[in-house]
Amino acid sequence: MKALVFDGTALAERLVPRPRPRRGEALIKVRCAGICSTDIEILRGYMSFRGIPGHEFVGTVVSSSPRRLAGSRVVGEINLSCGSCPLCRAGLGTHCTTRSVLGIQGRNGAFAEYLALPVKNLHIVPPSLSDEEAAFTELVAAACEIPAQVDFRRSHSVYVLGDGRLAAMVAQVVRLKTKKVAVLGIDRDKLERIAAVGIETRDLKRRHGKLDRRDFVIDCTGSPEGLPLAAELVRPRGTIILKSTYQGTLEWNPAPIAVNEITVMGSRCGPFDTALDLLERRKIEVLPFLSAVYPLGSWEAAFRRARAADAFKVLIRIA
Amino acid sequence: MKALVFDGTALAERLVPRPRPRRGEALIKVRCAGICSTDIEILRGYMSFRGIPGHEFVGTVVSSSPRRLAGSRVVGEINLSCGSCPLCRAGLGTHCTTRSVLGIQGRNGAFAEYLALPVKNLHIVPPSLSDEEAAFTELVAAACEIPAQVDFRRSHSVYVLGDGRLAAMVAQVVRLKTKKVAVLGIDRDKLERIAAVGIETRDLKRRHGKLDRRDFVIDCTGSPEGLPLAAELVRPRGTIILKSTYQGTLEWNPAPIAVNEITVMGSRCGPFDTALDLLERRKIEVLPFLSAVYPLGSWEAAFRRARAADAFKVLIRIA
Repeated sequence: MKALVFDGTALAERLVPRPRPRRGEALIKVRCAGICSTDIEILRGYMSFRGIPGHEFVGTVVSSSPRRLAGSRVVGEINLSCGSCPLCRAGLGTHCTTRSVLGIQGRNGAFAEYLALPVKNLHIVPPSLSDEEAAFTELVAAACEIPAQVDFRRSHSVYVLGDGRLAAMVAQVVRLKTKKVAVLGIDRDKLERIAAVGIETRDLKRRHGKLDRRDFVIDCTGSPEGLPLAAELVRPRGTIILKSTYQGTLEWNPAPIAVNEITVMGSRCGPFDTALDLLERRKIEVLPFLSAVYPLGSWEAAFRRARAADAFKVLIRIA
Repeated sequence: MKALVFDGTALAERLVPRPRPRRGEALIKVRCAGICSTDIEILRGYMSFRGIPGHEFVGTVVSSSPRRLAGSRVVGEINLSCGSCPLCRAGLGTHCTTRSVLGIQGRNGAFAEYLALPVKNLHIVPPSLSDEEAAFTELVAAACEIPAQVDFRRSHSVYVLGDGRLAAMVAQVVRLKTKKVAVLGIDRDKLERIAAVGIETRDLKRRHGKLDRRDFVIDCTGSPEGLPLAAELVRPRGTIILKSTYQGTLEWNPAPIAVNEITVMGSRCGPFDTALDLLERRKIEVLPFLSAVYPLGSWEAAFRRARAADAFKVLIRIA
């Protein structure tokens, strides 16, 4: 099959054997796959990953055990846990210490014609959702992890830092829980597109009055500048949600965390069922944040586009 | 009066005017004052403080309104809040944005013959406690802030990182709530003295088996190395309590916080009443952690001693 393979230096299209599903796994023909910031960080060395990257996908089940899934259109949770360690037994399978992660850690991913995933990781896509919409499921689920961790009240005030695809999803998800949400970014065009779905935005590059401090600040910048800025903008005893991961180093004095008794909560993958439900009920708009769809053969152009400052989500159409 | 004054470059003994208590404040004759790591960081530039440092003290009230406190032996909370801003009105006076902090921020401190503090900040020292014991109140209160922020269960496991005076207090306070507490440090002698009050200790410089991951890791290292080590030792979805503040910069990639969905809680000053209660009921041992007492005239030797790797608490006896 055709696949994009990262050898530690460069990404290249190659012909590789189809994955062989293990017991309990399904073979999935990939329909389309999204390029995530994590993929771009992986090409810069993040997680020291080697193999086929890609973890946001929609596909069709070719074969599975039980068979009833065959032919279904699915999305899939990306963590492959052992199921038997103390963390798994405590229901924290996404934190299993011997886990592999689709296209991120020890497991070939979705930039390929086929992938294999455990049946228990799969979720059937409602027919009303297009492939392009369903490809946002993993991203929306990551946003849904935040209200799963934090009890928002209507009266809480929130900043979302960053103007990318994750920020756009997070702001929409959080807005369902609390009214006072603003996205702070630096790209005027992207902020305008976020504003177009009814989210308040502020351009950090423009002159503006002093920003008020908020109960929650959610760092979706994907950059080392996010956390220090969040610490400036959160109120004393407030909470920062850290969504950003990146290759590279933060240079900072974390004294404000201790002095202002701030809580920093890391947040990663989230619940697919909640995400699919919000997508199906049209509570979250995703297509305004689809920047482009490329065929697999144009993967270099797709990655260039995904890296561009003005891009939201870029998809690769594989079948 | 005699006082130690920091001019931004060096600490020096000077003759300065006595402080003039404002409305609602007491004039206090300082009996003894403790040297805290924050004082040492201040001399390295932390908080850009200028003036008389020192915030751990025991003193005798000379004059106050109401008068009934005159003659009392007291310790004092160090945050001077406005009492009227939204944070103060919400009971978060220690986070008042216009606050001053005794010997740390905008307010002369305790390395002097006299200091002034609002009467509402003062706590009378029980007669059964010596000056030397009472001088630990602020430090013990800082340790007591942790169980005020976190609901410990008996079954929780905890590491305390650092082998200094704060770590010794924190470990003793946390042990009252949960059984599995170990202090991880690098100074053999100090670890032995912590072990002597019944706390489990491990020497990070010695060969030991792989350390298990714990539910809570409390960073009392006062060093940029503390937080990254804490992130390695806390379990996924576990909590790091950040007590350390220091002058200087942390260089680190905080990805483990997001990936392992760790919570980092900053923690600063704590409740004096709880601390005095624990001291009076002999639930916390402090005198094993008193390294030396110097007269004010020997302040240079006192600071040298406080900076030494093997020192716990060093006091300056002023009256």
